[in-house]
Amino acid sequence: MTDVKGFFYPRTASGRSSLIPSPPWFYSGDLLTVEYRTDPARVAELLPAPLAPAEEDPGAVALIWADWQSCSSSRQELLDPVRSQYKEAFVVVRCSYQGRTYSRCVYIWVDKDFAIGRGVHQGYPKKLGSMWQTRPHPFAQAAPQIQAGGVFGATLAANDRRLAEAVLTLREKSESNGFVNGHPMAHHRVFPGIASGAPDAYAELISSGASEFEGGQAWKGDVDLRLFPSPTEELDRLRVDEVIGGYYRQVGVVWNGGASLETLSS
Amino acid sequence: MTDVKGFFYPRTASGRSSLIPSPPWFYSGDLLTVEYRTDPARVAELLPAPLAPAEEDPGAVALIWADWQSCSSSRQELLDPVRSQYKEAFVVVRCSYQGRTYSRCVYIWVDKDFAIGRGVHQGYPKKLGSMWQTRPHPFAQAAPQIQAGGVFGATLAANDRRLAEAVLTLREKSESNGFVNGHPMAHHRVFPGIASGAPDAYAELISSGASEFEGGQAWKGDVDLRLFPSPTEELDRLRVDEVIGGYYRQVGVVWNGGASLETLSS
Amino acid sequence: MTDVKGFFYPRTASGRSSLIPSPPWFYSGDLLTVEYRTDPARVAELLPAPLAPAEEDPGAVALIWADWQSCSSSRQELLDPVRSQYKEAFVVVRCSYQGRTYSRCVYIWVDKDFAIGRGVHQGYPKKLGSMWQTRPHPFAQAAPQIQAGGVFGATLAANDRRLAEAVLTLREKSESNGFVNGHPMAHHRVFPGIASGAPDAYAELISSGASEFEGGQAWKGDVDLRLFPSPTEELDRLRVDEVIGGYYRQVGVVWNGGASLETLSS
Amino acid sequence: MTDVKGFFYPRTASGRSSLIPSPPWFYSGDLLTVEYRTDPARVAELLPAPLAPAEEDPGAVALIWADWQSCSSSRQELLDPVRSQYKEAFVVVRCSYQGRTYSRCVYIWVDKDFAIGRGVHQGYPKKLGSMWQTRPHPFAQAAPQIQAGGVFGATLAANDRRLAEAVLTLREKSESNGFVNGHPMAHHRVFPGIASGAPDAYAELISSGASEFEGGQAWKGDVDLRLFPSPTEELDRLRVDEVIGGYYRQVGVVWNGGASLETLSS
Repeated sequence: MTDVKGFFYPRTASGRSSLIPSPPWFYSGDLLTVEYRTDPARVAELLPAPLAPAEEDPGAVALIWADWQSCSSSRQELLDPVRSQYKEAFVVVRCSYQGRTYSRCVYIWVDKDFAIGRGVHQGYPKKLGSMWQTRPHPFAQAAPQIQAGGVFGATLAANDRRLAEAVLTLREKSESNGFVNGHPMAHHRVFPGIASGAPDAYAELISSGASEFEGGQAWKGDVDLRLFPSPTEELDRLRVDEVIGGYYRQVGVVWNGGASLETLSS
Repeated sequence: MTDVKGFFYPRTASGRSSLIPSPPWFYSGDLLTVEYRTDPARVAELLPAPLAPAEEDPGAVALIWADWQSCSSSRQELLDPVRSQYKEAFVVVRCSYQGRTYSRCVYIWVDKDFAIGRGVHQGYPKKLGSMWQTRPHPFAQAAPQIQAGGVFGATLAANDRRLAEAVLTLREKSESNGFVNGHPMAHHRVFPGIASGAPDAYAELISSGASEFEGGQAWKGDVDLRLFPSPTEELDRLRVDEVIGGYYRQVGVVWNGGASLETLSS
Repeated sequence: MTDVKGFFYPRTASGRSSLIPSPPWFYSGDLLTVEYRTDPARVAELLPAPLAPAEEDPGAVALIWADWQSCSSSRQELLDPVRSQYKEAFVVVRCSYQGRTYSRCVYIWVDKDFAIGRGVHQGYPKKLGSMWQTRPHPFAQAAPQIQAGGVFGATLAANDRRLAEAVLTLREKSESNGFVNGHPMAHHRVFPGIASGAPDAYAELISSGASEFEGGQAWKGDVDLRLFPSPTEELDRLRVDEVIGGYYRQVGVVWNGGASLETLSS
Repeated sequence: MTDVKGFFYPRTASGRSSLIPSPPWFYSGDLLTVEYRTDPARVAELLPAPLAPAEEDPGAVALIWADWQSCSSSRQELLDPVRSQYKEAFVVVRCSYQGRTYSRCVYIWVDKDFAIGRGVHQGYPKKLGSMWQTRPHPFAQAAPQIQAGGVFGATLAANDRRLAEAVLTLREKSESNGFVNGHPMAHHRVFPGIASGAPDAYAELISSGASEFEGGQAWKGDVDLRLFPSPTEELDRLRVDEVIGGYYRQVGVVWNGGASLETLSS
């Protein structure tokens, strides 16, 4: 009897072809976060049962750009960085489950297939996009510094359409990098039934978060944010009613699995 | 209680953001197929239980390039063709399940996210790649014709490495487009357990195939095929021992779901 | 004394590295053309001396999408189609020079470097863009036919912003594929002076056109065209005042050099 | 008489569409340099008249990866970083002209069109490629530090083929970042004649270099370098006979034009 190996597909005799290796997964990167308030009803409509809106500030949204380098325990990806570097932009809201507050990624775009594969596993609803964020650099000829006055731009596009643009001007040190993405994530993993018109074959509510986290000094500042419409996206439905703030922080993260909260159907 | 909609993720109040719409899915495209024999043990090691090697010609492999235009029932994707056109290359072998012969895609690369999403649903183990195949055109200044003497090239790369190259020279009309990809597909759909080191949370063996199919005149010819190594791929492990033939055919296909063969764990 | 070879850069002992081989260059492809009228002053402002506006219909503009396969005399590119296939969208106006009417490409976007290199040689002001146009296919599951009722979409983006979208619905056979792009091209080739603030080091007005041309039956139809703003583009400055028509045609073309009209400075 | 504006093509009434703005151009970035010796005859064959081989160490080659953020004086590109960030890999040799030693870029690949446009102006023979280099980051979860033991990978591909791979392990601080790329650049700018078979219409030998330069502490280390063949490239013809060393340095640069050395034909 054949015993195929590999954390993810495609599984083979060696397991070497798997789109993603087994966790833990390691990340070093820069986060540009914009937090704002939208109509709480627009957040609530993205929270399927058994999730409910967060009790406090239920209209709070975080739109986060991340510029990552990542690897598995072997660290081999770092020597072939096409397999290590990726960019993403994602939208996080908060919700309540069994009396506890969770964060939840409702939209996310990445630019590599291994990042999509991780998302399928972790319940992040990843699509491909084109994300860009200004990088800090020790030499200021063409780069901001992470300090008061530093200006960072960030853009998101998918299917050749701009979806979001932000400009963040750092003003002062901050105790936090925002609060919307600060809880464990509550995500769904779903397989639609394979038969035409069938209900989901499998649905599971899972929770996960960083198993290790290090962060540099966070900075906050003033932010200009614009969202644009697209026939295939609903990001602009989370319209910007009030900007809470913008943040910049460099971080190191380890992810090593999560917990199943409940199996919703099978 | 919120009722989110959408065939696939992300699910929203309208369902409009879903990476892929509900089937049926419609395809028009050109297939360049190369069939060859490899060591049957190399095929067998890719067939997890409850699958077994095909009884006849168990080392037969098809490497297929496809240049697709596709859409859902709305046909809206055809007016915004960044959402409609994609290319793929995939490797098919045959297997046996409960006494019946199935085809099975063991490796596949595509160049759009909606194609990856369809693959997650259908059990195709899709990664991103860069695929190119020569196109026929009515004017021969820079194009072959689908006729004797027509020469078509095809290449596959992933992570900036060439994985395969083929050159097909058409020789004569053919009754078929090959035999390896001619059965219903038997594919696994798997969610690894979310907890570190956990077994699969869900695994299902499904079957599917075209619900409608039209094909033009198939042509066969002589083929030169080369496979190259990569640290993250095992395509070249299916080494070319004997070329069976090369084929070219234009087709129209509808896919509208499949059947669950068995749930393997949950 | 070393004798480096190669039609274009980089020149080497063998000439094999040249971004583009020597003409003639061969093309097979599909053209989707939209012609419209804009304010003639907006066309005139794009015509540097010694060019003048066309005498008739000086506000006529053609926006053309092309889906090409191309090669040099060796035809080797056709076997490695990443080096052969490319897409483009370009804007053509007409002008007058020494009493003769010329066409002139004022904006153009392509998606391959060899196409940029050809443009530097031919005076096409090429940038990178992302262009998509619906393809006809013999099987209609997900494709229009080149016949009455066929609907074709076309989009153009650059720097992650949509610049143009068109939808063309074919209505009837047409004697032409439009008139704006029907003359020899009059293009500038310029090297800015290398010293800071220096005038052009070289400027030449050249003319060229196809040395051979074959075309299938042209079709015309109704067209919906939208242009969008961008901080780095001025396509939308050529605003659509009146649509003249939309056209679809498959063509085969050979380009084999042109003529120098005058050297403007050196 | 119309007066079109713009440093480069396309020139318009406002100049806003120019693929590249006027110098000065500003750069912040990271350089990974590998220096080695090849057969001096292979370098000499890339040096057209009036250039001659360098008197000392004429077979020295530098292969340099650069991860850049760049902008013009307006700094607007930094707020829309798709127009600011790019990567490149380039090959530099040395040569002699009128008794002075120059550096000369013989091959270069970039990943943005504005970088190609700058190259046409500056005489860098730019093609499109896919370049990746490991990034340092303050948090080491998935990143090296710029210090002893830091390991950096770098890869180069074009047309879906790997052309070069390097791994650099930093060992100690270095007084320099190598010597091959340390002179003013001597580059050709050429327009082939537009008529079929015509000689060059224009050829100029120019010189340029940074007008301002700042650099961080350079590090040197051990390097593993592999070059691969391609039908369209000759990088591997500069075969690695002896590795001189590998270097890593963060820099800030301003480029503001150069000087014409001589016009070779017109």
